[in-house]
Amino acid sequence: MGEATREKRAYGMKRIVDVSFDEALTRTREALKGEGFGVLTEIDMKEKFQEKLGKGFRNYVILGACNPNLAFEALGKDIDIGLLLPCNVVVYETEGQTAVAVIDAEKAMSVTGSTEVEPIAKQVNEKLSRALNAI
Amino acid sequence: MGEATREKRAYGMKRIVDVSFDEALTRTREALKGEGFGVLTEIDMKEKFQEKLGKGFRNYVILGACNPNLAFEALGKDIDIGLLLPCNVVVYETEGQTAVAVIDAEKAMSVTGSTEVEPIAKQVNEKLSRALNAI
Repeated sequence: MGEATREKRAYGMKRIVDVSFDEALTRTREALKGEGFGVLTEIDMKEKFQEKLGKGFRNYVILGACNPNLAFEALGKDIDIGLLLPCNVVVYETEGQTAVAVIDAEKAMSVTGSTEVEPIAKQVNEKLSRALNAI
Repeated sequence: MGEATREKRAYGMKRIVDVSFDEALTRTREALKGEGFGVLTEIDMKEKFQEKLGKGFRNYVILGACNPNLAFEALGKDIDIGLLLPCNVVVYETEGQTAVAVIDAEKAMSVTGSTEVEPIAKQVNEKLSRALNAI
């Protein structure tokens, strides 16, 4: 994907990619699928802000990605873990380029304090990281 | 709502309510709306597990609730905060009763390390807590 920078955030991993927003969104959906994630939800924040607040906003989509096997396993360890599912991936415009960021599942799920959930979150992170690289 | 227990979890607040799953789901949607949340996403985990894995599961729905004004404000402080939006509310069957749990937004957003996001998350928690009480 040509020029790309990669950044580790406090609670996610992010890449800036030099393609259009729409192209990045398409590639992100494909990359997630390639790592076994279903995209269960898709929220167009620009559209929502226009509709609910009458305010303009940059292109910004939140994808909810879920690996069914790992989700099933995690719910078996902690029935309330649905509060932290699915795993979010955001795609948004930034200075003529497009940012793609994925949640750090280990960090996000650390709030559960569950050592049983930790290895599952680690597997999720490996898959999300590979998906981010594949865009 | 008759008998109800309330529990503070490490990363959320939960009530067990003595009504059917469907009734609890309807009341939860209404209570969220009453506090200014739009329900942007709704994931039927039972259906997903059946479809993707061919496995049975209890009734379990994940609602993605979003207060547009607070989301707009939060994104102004941290453009990547979409990784932690919307705020999840889960409704699921448990021993003949129904559990309703809401995320602790302050806890979930503490991973950002942002003191600017903190007061917004606090407002979200107050609204979620009132919604939970109203069910």
